[in-house]
Amino acid sequence: MHSSPPAGQHTVRRHNCALVLRAISAAPGISRADVATRTGLAKATVSSLTERLARANLVTRTGPQSRAGRGRRGTGLALSTSGPHGLGLEIGVDYIATCLADPHGELHAHRVRHGDNRPRSVRQVLALAARAVRTALLDAGERGVPVGGVAVAVPGLVEAATGLLRTAPNLGWQEVDIAQSLRARTDLGTLPIVPGNEADFAASAELLSGGGDGPRDFVHVSGEVGIGAGIIIDGAVFRGVRGYAGEIGHLGVDPTGPECRCGARGCLERLAGQEQILRAAGIDGDTAEQELEILLRRLEAADPQTVAAVEAAGRWLGAGLANVVNAVDVPAVVLGGTYAILQPWLERPLRAELDRRVLSATWSPITVLRSRLGSEAAVRGAAAAAVRAILDDPEPYVAARERGTG
Amino acid sequence: MHSSPPAGQHTVRRHNCALVLRAISAAPGISRADVATRTGLAKATVSSLTERLARANLVTRTGPQSRAGRGRRGTGLALSTSGPHGLGLEIGVDYIATCLADPHGELHAHRVRHGDNRPRSVRQVLALAARAVRTALLDAGERGVPVGGVAVAVPGLVEAATGLLRTAPNLGWQEVDIAQSLRARTDLGTLPIVPGNEADFAASAELLSGGGDGPRDFVHVSGEVGIGAGIIIDGAVFRGVRGYAGEIGHLGVDPTGPECRCGARGCLERLAGQEQILRAAGIDGDTAEQELEILLRRLEAADPQTVAAVEAAGRWLGAGLANVVNAVDVPAVVLGGTYAILQPWLERPLRAELDRRVLSATWSPITVLRSRLGSEAAVRGAAAAAVRAILDDPEPYVAARERGTG
Repeated sequence: MHSSPPAGQHTVRRHNCALVLRAISAAPGISRADVATRTGLAKATVSSLTERLARANLVTRTGPQSRAGRGRRGTGLALSTSGPHGLGLEIGVDYIATCLADPHGELHAHRVRHGDNRPRSVRQVLALAARAVRTALLDAGERGVPVGGVAVAVPGLVEAATGLLRTAPNLGWQEVDIAQSLRARTDLGTLPIVPGNEADFAASAELLSGGGDGPRDFVHVSGEVGIGAGIIIDGAVFRGVRGYAGEIGHLGVDPTGPECRCGARGCLERLAGQEQILRAAGIDGDTAEQELEILLRRLEAADPQTVAAVEAAGRWLGAGLANVVNAVDVPAVVLGGTYAILQPWLERPLRAELDRRVLSATWSPITVLRSRLGSEAAVRGAAAAAVRAILDDPEPYVAARERGTG
Repeated sequence: MHSSPPAGQHTVRRHNCALVLRAISAAPGISRADVATRTGLAKATVSSLTERLARANLVTRTGPQSRAGRGRRGTGLALSTSGPHGLGLEIGVDYIATCLADPHGELHAHRVRHGDNRPRSVRQVLALAARAVRTALLDAGERGVPVGGVAVAVPGLVEAATGLLRTAPNLGWQEVDIAQSLRARTDLGTLPIVPGNEADFAASAELLSGGGDGPRDFVHVSGEVGIGAGIIIDGAVFRGVRGYAGEIGHLGVDPTGPECRCGARGCLERLAGQEQILRAAGIDGDTAEQELEILLRRLEAADPQTVAAVEAAGRWLGAGLANVVNAVDVPAVVLGGTYAILQPWLERPLRAELDRRVLSATWSPITVLRSRLGSEAAVRGAAAAAVRAILDDPEPYVAARERGTG
């Protein structure tokens, strides 16, 4: 069947390589003959591609297949667990985290270094981030697995086409080439290093956490120092035209509201962010963790001022999310990060605003869910994205290994 | 080249039919041999498909090709101008409009019936709409062209999966099956009747009006009685998960603002809609057209109260659109409908709010453009969408003609 003009040899091989790996990933233990049937590729092509995938340790042989048959038994093929891992790095406002994801998406070696990055210079933070990457590479070495790519979660706007961090308001960063900086300070060589918005990575981690059974259309909102949203439509991150979609921290919801560091008034972050909740609750501790602990203790004791502070944040968050839902049309909201922890107090006022402000809620109320992932969602999502990028398009990794540069 | 598992015969024929028509549409005068080369299809397949497309009058022969060659000269193929037309119907708040679009997207027989639909019952309005459709079918008959499909623009939320109008707040309509009603009252037979949001159709008309040279990523906003937005991403309408994206009339921009008929407070429509502009300007005429005329006359005379009213609307519109841009990430705003007319007074305050509130505007200011289409954008877009649907997937139309039911 000819369905489109013939593509270049290179493109065809790349496409077929991905096709074969996808077939193996979808049916662990599959024979080469069955891969040929499923992909429509010639058996010889499948054999040569699986040979290359096996040499790059993306695919492993699972021993003779159990089904009886005449002649030589087929060899079962599966994704190799010791194949290339994804390295996730998160540069947060007050921590730096790393972890590894294996080809099955399982996480390993999760590490968090707490410490406020705001008073540090960009150079200092990037040096700390590079050190965290080097440690993660040692973790991978100890496990005897290679790292195939790095994804970096940052609390800011990353231009999709270039990977450039344009702005991270809560870090005070502008125009930072994170990939270049990390490459200069580590042994990552030519491995892909892909920065992205932390909220997008957190949303994709939430998507994966359902194991394919969870919702495939939602906005995931998390509140730490800033407020970030990642939008998932039809099982994929919706990034908008340039990569900046889901910037909800600076949605304007109250024209007479307090001034924001961005220069505008009444931004959602100033009304429903963690700092505002703590301020309204009259909590002033030494560290963010300590303050959050006090907040929770008072909420559980039903302290009126604290409950009122969280409920007010819930109303503002609902008003902001209603704007997002009216603009983008997603049927569900997932509360992540600190909002997941505050969900018992936050949800009722939030839901009331959604019901009141979302036009479609009349016949189809917005579902409000609570993330199961906690504050590590973004770094998990980054690691999973890094390994997913290799599995979706394995040829560059395979070719680099063949050249001895991977 | 095998790139995917073999599809069913039916799907393949449908796919190939679209492929051949697209090749002909892209290169008017093309020979069958060149269609075969461009599509990768066998010449016999191309011949049989062009034969069917010609019998359904989708394709016409343009006489011997000019290029010299040995043997029999090829026959040039082109889209037939007298092929199936799209019928656009718009049910507005205070008018009903129709027009026809030929296969090249040219418009014919544009008709508008003014009259406030709000005091009328749903049944009355649908009867008037059906009458308008019957007149448009007569228009097509007089031109000797068939109608291949109908698209209906409505100021409300249409569920993409079912075509059901869920709500049209400014008409006061809920749960209306427009397609069924029109089919029962006209001779449309089994022709597709596809309702959709008027703002989405207006945005797609704006996209087409550039002839492929205009922007391919923008939000088109138009203000008549309500405020509607259509979002175009990568040259296609972005509808969200269920078809409700771009509902900006009820974005909440001021929690202490005036009450809206939707039940919430401070909706954008109440602050930047046409009614609010007229009220703030102190204009109270007999008809909407008359009021708009007075408004423009006073603006041109630089009447302070009138200018202030439009500037205030511009600020609110800017605040609302900033929320849309922050959520969806589109680099341009197109002012349509009444906003296009008011652009000289609206743009400065609107742009100031965008610059202040859109995070990415610091390094990449949002472009603000003015639509050239005026208030007929939605009905144009609907007619073009109806004919585009046939060209993109001609097999159902061709098969219906062969069965004698089209």
